Amino acid sequence: MEQGNKAATALPVVDARIYPRGGLDVLSRAEVARLRDASAGGMHELLRRCALAVLTSGSASDDPRAARDLYPDFDIQVTQQDRGVRIDLNKAPAMAFVDGEIIRGVAELLFAVVRDLAYMAIELGPQYAADLESGEGITNAVFGLLRNARILHPSDPNLVVCWGGHSISRDEYLYTKQVGYELGLRGLDICTGCGPGAMKGPMKGATIAHAKQRRTNTRYIGVTEPGIIAAESPNPIVNHLVIMPDIEKRLEAFVRIGHGIIVFPGGVGTAEEILYLLGILLREENAHLPLPLILTGPTIAAPYFEQIDRFIRLTLGDAAASRYEIIVGDPVEVARRMTRGIKQVREYRIAQRDSFYFNWSITIPEEYQRPFVPTHEAMASLDLHQGRPAPALAADLRRAFSGIVAGNVKEESMQRIEANGPFEIHGDAEMMQALDALLRAFVEQRRMKIAGDYKPCYRVVT
Amino acid sequence: MEQGNKAATALPVVDARIYPRGGLDVLSRAEVARLRDASAGGMHELLRRCALAVLTSGSASDDPRAARDLYPDFDIQVTQQDRGVRIDLNKAPAMAFVDGEIIRGVAELLFAVVRDLAYMAIELGPQYAADLESGEGITNAVFGLLRNARILHPSDPNLVVCWGGHSISRDEYLYTKQVGYELGLRGLDICTGCGPGAMKGPMKGATIAHAKQRRTNTRYIGVTEPGIIAAESPNPIVNHLVIMPDIEKRLEAFVRIGHGIIVFPGGVGTAEEILYLLGILLREENAHLPLPLILTGPTIAAPYFEQIDRFIRLTLGDAAASRYEIIVGDPVEVARRMTRGIKQVREYRIAQRDSFYFNWSITIPEEYQRPFVPTHEAMASLDLHQGRPAPALAADLRRAFSGIVAGNVKEESMQRIEANGPFEIHGDAEMMQALDALLRAFVEQRRMKIAGDYKPCYRVVT
Amino acid sequence: MEQGNKAATALPVVDARIYPRGGLDVLSRAEVARLRDASAGGMHELLRRCALAVLTSGSASDDPRAARDLYPDFDIQVTQQDRGVRIDLNKAPAMAFVDGEIIRGVAELLFAVVRDLAYMAIELGPQYAADLESGEGITNAVFGLLRNARILHPSDPNLVVCWGGHSISRDEYLYTKQVGYELGLRGLDICTGCGPGAMKGPMKGATIAHAKQRRTNTRYIGVTEPGIIAAESPNPIVNHLVIMPDIEKRLEAFVRIGHGIIVFPGGVGTAEEILYLLGILLREENAHLPLPLILTGPTIAAPYFEQIDRFIRLTLGDAAASRYEIIVGDPVEVARRMTRGIKQVREYRIAQRDSFYFNWSITIPEEYQRPFVPTHEAMASLDLHQGRPAPALAADLRRAFSGIVAGNVKEESMQRIEANGPFEIHGDAEMMQALDALLRAFVEQRRMKIAGDYKPCYRVVT
Amino acid sequence: MEQGNKAATALPVVDARIYPRGGLDVLSRAEVARLRDASAGGMHELLRRCALAVLTSGSASDDPRAARDLYPDFDIQVTQQDRGVRIDLNKAPAMAFVDGEIIRGVAELLFAVVRDLAYMAIELGPQYAADLESGEGITNAVFGLLRNARILHPSDPNLVVCWGGHSISRDEYLYTKQVGYELGLRGLDICTGCGPGAMKGPMKGATIAHAKQRRTNTRYIGVTEPGIIAAESPNPIVNHLVIMPDIEKRLEAFVRIGHGIIVFPGGVGTAEEILYLLGILLREENAHLPLPLILTGPTIAAPYFEQIDRFIRLTLGDAAASRYEIIVGDPVEVARRMTRGIKQVREYRIAQRDSFYFNWSITIPEEYQRPFVPTHEAMASLDLHQGRPAPALAADLRRAFSGIVAGNVKEESMQRIEANGPFEIHGDAEMMQALDALLRAFVEQRRMKIAGDYKPCYRVVT
Repeated sequence: MEQGNKAATALPVVDARIYPRGGLDVLSRAEVARLRDASAGGMHELLRRCALAVLTSGSASDDPRAARDLYPDFDIQVTQQDRGVRIDLNKAPAMAFVDGEIIRGVAELLFAVVRDLAYMAIELGPQYAADLESGEGITNAVFGLLRNARILHPSDPNLVVCWGGHSISRDEYLYTKQVGYELGLRGLDICTGCGPGAMKGPMKGATIAHAKQRRTNTRYIGVTEPGIIAAESPNPIVNHLVIMPDIEKRLEAFVRIGHGIIVFPGGVGTAEEILYLLGILLREENAHLPLPLILTGPTIAAPYFEQIDRFIRLTLGDAAASRYEIIVGDPVEVARRMTRGIKQVREYRIAQRDSFYFNWSITIPEEYQRPFVPTHEAMASLDLHQGRPAPALAADLRRAFSGIVAGNVKEESMQRIEANGPFEIHGDAEMMQALDALLRAFVEQRRMKIAGDYKPCYRVVT
Repeated sequence: MEQGNKAATALPVVDARIYPRGGLDVLSRAEVARLRDASAGGMHELLRRCALAVLTSGSASDDPRAARDLYPDFDIQVTQQDRGVRIDLNKAPAMAFVDGEIIRGVAELLFAVVRDLAYMAIELGPQYAADLESGEGITNAVFGLLRNARILHPSDPNLVVCWGGHSISRDEYLYTKQVGYELGLRGLDICTGCGPGAMKGPMKGATIAHAKQRRTNTRYIGVTEPGIIAAESPNPIVNHLVIMPDIEKRLEAFVRIGHGIIVFPGGVGTAEEILYLLGILLREENAHLPLPLILTGPTIAAPYFEQIDRFIRLTLGDAAASRYEIIVGDPVEVARRMTRGIKQVREYRIAQRDSFYFNWSITIPEEYQRPFVPTHEAMASLDLHQGRPAPALAADLRRAFSGIVAGNVKEESMQRIEANGPFEIHGDAEMMQALDALLRAFVEQRRMKIAGDYKPCYRVVT
Repeated sequence: MEQGNKAATALPVVDARIYPRGGLDVLSRAEVARLRDASAGGMHELLRRCALAVLTSGSASDDPRAARDLYPDFDIQVTQQDRGVRIDLNKAPAMAFVDGEIIRGVAELLFAVVRDLAYMAIELGPQYAADLESGEGITNAVFGLLRNARILHPSDPNLVVCWGGHSISRDEYLYTKQVGYELGLRGLDICTGCGPGAMKGPMKGATIAHAKQRRTNTRYIGVTEPGIIAAESPNPIVNHLVIMPDIEKRLEAFVRIGHGIIVFPGGVGTAEEILYLLGILLREENAHLPLPLILTGPTIAAPYFEQIDRFIRLTLGDAAASRYEIIVGDPVEVARRMTRGIKQVREYRIAQRDSFYFNWSITIPEEYQRPFVPTHEAMASLDLHQGRPAPALAADLRRAFSGIVAGNVKEESMQRIEANGPFEIHGDAEMMQALDALLRAFVEQRRMKIAGDYKPCYRVVT
Repeated sequence: MEQGNKAATALPVVDARIYPRGGLDVLSRAEVARLRDASAGGMHELLRRCALAVLTSGSASDDPRAARDLYPDFDIQVTQQDRGVRIDLNKAPAMAFVDGEIIRGVAELLFAVVRDLAYMAIELGPQYAADLESGEGITNAVFGLLRNARILHPSDPNLVVCWGGHSISRDEYLYTKQVGYELGLRGLDICTGCGPGAMKGPMKGATIAHAKQRRTNTRYIGVTEPGIIAAESPNPIVNHLVIMPDIEKRLEAFVRIGHGIIVFPGGVGTAEEILYLLGILLREENAHLPLPLILTGPTIAAPYFEQIDRFIRLTLGDAAASRYEIIVGDPVEVARRMTRGIKQVREYRIAQRDSFYFNWSITIPEEYQRPFVPTHEAMASLDLHQGRPAPALAADLRRAFSGIVAGNVKEESMQRIEANGPFEIHGDAEMMQALDALLRAFVEQRRMKIAGDYKPCYRVVT
């Protein structure tokens, strides 16, 4: 936080005292104490960062450091009272308030932040570390967090997960709105990574369609994680926010709660998501599991999807490509196929006696669940060679993209790279060239966050 | 309906059968019969036109004849069944349907059309003509229609009427959205003339703000009349629609139900509304009645309001100008003043024991209530001279603008002018010049509907 | 109101000022004025009497004059305010209040009284007398009143009308509760004449069953008329009250809104209801109309129903008896058959496209609709001879019982009889003997109101 | 279960399969498995007994062994499905069903049973035994169970705990109904031990009053424990049921959630409750804590309360007596004082920043929290001598009564006594005589469960 910046940019701020409701309003004294301790201790910086992201929800910037530079003195305390919890905000962004009153939706997102960090501190704390050793334990943790966030409830399958870039062209953004609109007209709800761009457009389109269909109780679910939320503030339409502990649990959450998935154009992060999902779907155990997966964009995005498609066929084979459909420039068709696909999901769940609200049947191997920390060593040890089984290769490709995302936007990784130079990624020449070409295309299409000239955070080694 | 056109423009259509709910679902046999007769007889063309407007709600065009050219074979029948009413739609615009099902919000607007025309046929039919002879009778009819449309209900004052043009610049449109957003953040609902432009922007902004404030039971009320609805389809956000029998009852409805009024930039129609309102507020009886009235637009609209302000001071005097505030480029300030103004309205109503939902206390003279039919004779007999009492002069100025609106957009008047040449308007040279200058400015600012070159529908005679 | 009495019996009273909601809260100024005038003028005594009945709802006594003797100074005024209606209560029974606040359910019943009298004054006033000349006009009036009272709404048929005496034995009362309980368990709602005894028991039983089935939005409808309500205060369970203008419209209301009818043991009034209904069902036009009709009571009531059955077979023939079932001592069976019968009603209504909430299909001849005023002349002119067509005979029998009810409990008739001696009823010797035997049995079974020795208000002339 | 009995008493039974909602519908696979294991294993008999109690809810008998004799073949299984939980009922009492469908309220109580036993198995299982070592840990367990049962929610204080006997005279029962009625009129909710008699009357009276006040969302909370529920089936009005693990946690639950307490006439169990509460209130730490405590009954119960009062003054001193009021024969006064008392509780909680829904401020010493198992040894070691500090003496007196209750109605204790003879209770002569006199009076007043001649389960040793 340079002083110079601070003077230049300081924006109107507000002090406030807030009493949470809904889930945080009935805590035991012990729980409140643990929450207070966690938020004052090791989790304080995390809480502060997430709270700030929520309080600047809807602002234009998505620079990870911007909000903190703009509100350098912002702080948040969670205080214990016998009656429950009190949240004190100091020097909070005035944009979250109207005539001194916090905007109710913003307050709800703030409670969600505290609620999820409380859950992590109380239910996933060190004493439960052993539970997270097994794949089943991790899935249970994902389940527990989502249930605690009231995301799980037993209604008919209608949740479409939308993935795609935060930084997309105006045409692409309008297209995501149209798709959201057509989904909303058909009674479908939306779940995204909760930032701008392709994560906001479908929610916005669905909002208008839901209003026209007079649907209330609509769900615009944002699933994020501590490293991402600071860079991608929840857009203002999100009405259910959940913060998962890490990237891998966030990805698992998408896959367990979504009844269908749409991929819009995006950058490295989107590529990571596609590879994660295909790696799982290629598993023998999931071969017959229905999960509609549609890659779509406006006509101008056709080349983008051709490129992705080529990359997948090259690396994972045609079998992988058979798990998705590419639809270009036809929002109505996307919505119709998604509706049909979700109908099949519904029938399958009934036949399998699986729940509607959590996809227990899909097998997610532990290697997809374990957190990947993109150190230079970890990145260097990825094995991107032809001939490996597709699921294993997909897992490593996913990790490669994950590391590149981190190198681009996450502070810790950015510092590592500043210190030690770019990551080295090893693999086949052909695969490495394809990877590099794909990433360069992302840059040319301005799908990557760039401040100043683009300097890749990785180096391909064949 | 030329055949040529038809072939060229015919769009996808749908046949459908609909069973109304909410207000139309508990009719007596006699009422159903009268409704069926009215809708098959004299009111059929009106019903057809209004229904078509609603079914094309949200479409871009606002050419009065466009929808009918695009859906030349559209028809609607209201059929009696012992159980109630059935609505048959033939060759209806496919855009109102999703996969064969009518969009629920569109269906609701359609029921509103039938409901209001039924009320006109049943409760305001020829046998009650005498009731409409007196000013009090007219007010009762306005009350009855609004109550029947479920617009009146006893909650705290929070309804802001927004007037302004359907054809405004992008900057002006974004500004109306911002104002609507700030109103919505403060819990205010919106009522407009229900078309595009300044009638849509505030509703759209308020929708987002209401969502952020988690307000449900929001009201986006559109008040229209048969001659206008065809030219100005309800925008898709309107969730309460009411069709008043004529311009004058529509204006009275605005004034009786609004707790405050905001005027955005607009054309002749907006000028008509301002003059109507000022003429009433200038009455001795209404001198102490609080009714916040704010003229506002973005910075670029400042000259527009200066021109309007000058015209009002010239014609009605400075006293008239004291009833409004002009605020330029400050949506937050507009919303704050409106909130304060409505608080005063609330206190006044309580002190006067007047209802919150209908402004019984305001005096509207009969000359403002009687329908004005803009024939060439009627237009020629307007008396626009200095020295007349302000309310009387305001009434005639209002009529002049009303006639010009009709000459521009209403079919009947357009045909009269094609046949007999432009209206002649008589008055003082200074006033006539000011009037003409104002209208020419509207044309230059593209605030008037123009197809091809603009040919004024009137001629000033001094 | 004798002074002596007053001193002896005066009970705690309260003054209060009440602002109505729900239906009375959005009235026009003209409507409020007409309501105020009606309630201050010709309708004042009626309003006072009905209001008092409601305010003593739940008290034990059902002597028509008791409440008025106990609260001799009670008065009610309906006052106009621009904002709406205000109700002033003076010296009102304290039992309707808790710590100075009126009980909410009592207030609702009070609003219902004012609402229905307002409707009579405004919509059925002298200027609409002509509308009530035809049978269709009367049915429309019944429909209008019920709709205004929010009794009609389009849900699945589930309304069971229960008839029976206000004065029944404890065993019979417990039986009506059990039947109500079994009906309630099966999701059925209850409509009665709204007094004590068989009019209260089924509602009470249904209340417990509805609570066990967690049904909310239950309906306990009381249908009364001005002459009856004073003698039979609504029981405290009634949550929808409607006051019809006279006996005949009340009976028509039962028949139009009920989906099935249960008759418990009762006295003359119950006999009147049975004859009214059978007379209608015996009409050719209604021959195929399904309407489940069950006569039921505990085992000890078996002789009662045998007697009724014999009387009907004697007077109206076996065809009449084929329209009902008699079930003794089996509440579960009653509820099961009623459920099945209502299912048939539902199917019939769908097939006939008749509404669920109002039985338009049943034909009620005008002779059943016209108010019968039991003067000595009218009673003497009844023609109770064998050989007349059953519907006509049933109509006169109904009138005979109606006259006897009036002679027993209605003030006006009681005064006539005090002045002119008992009514004379003419007819066949056999029929007259049967009639007399039936009525004497009612007396012996204590089903008639008697203060002191029973002195019949009629004399049979053969 | 002797075969002979079975043949004689077998009642109609039903097999059914039920899918729970509300709290049991979103369980993880691991939770379902643990629930299934617990319900098939060690907890199965407990589950079976509690389920049977609920399924016979509302039946007349309260003999602990009756239901099991009447439905000897009843069984219940909780089955895992990926989608969630399924409950299979075999040979279940037909009285819980209507035409083959389970009564919804009964189903809800059944889910409550499974939910609470699941909580005990999952959250209070052996691995958490250490947490229950400390007083704070026990309070947390009580809190957790109540929260999981959705008993805790943050609304204004209005919960009146009513204690009193299951076996009371008709006059006393009617009195409890009247008190409940007056409480209900004033918007208060009721919590009892959920059996018949004084545990049912107040709920029944409140139900009628709530209906008259048009209150929905009413709460009739039954708090029970495994040893009691079988003997005291929840009455049919209970709409929230919670099963605490043992007597002491049940007593703590009453004290933590109640905002005021009313004690009606009762037997040993009621005496246990009074002593428990007074023992706590006499603690120095609780001296200033407001908690309205009213002992009340009809006039005929006056001697009963005099006797109790004397016993308390003798054993615990006059200070103890100053914590309660005795009101005889005045339901309105009881309700008014309770309303005032709860207002003070509200103010105190606000001042202390304590929650409304859980009384954290009251100190309950560990000796009141630790389960007391009434073995012959434990009973013999009670120390009932004058001169001990009142709280300690109250604790032992409470245990004495608790042991006697168990000896009278709980199977395990009854078997112990059959085997080893009556408990011996040691104490001062005067205190022992008073105790004995009190218990004999309970017998004379028929407040104790007796089958055949009463044979005391204890022997006083001075």
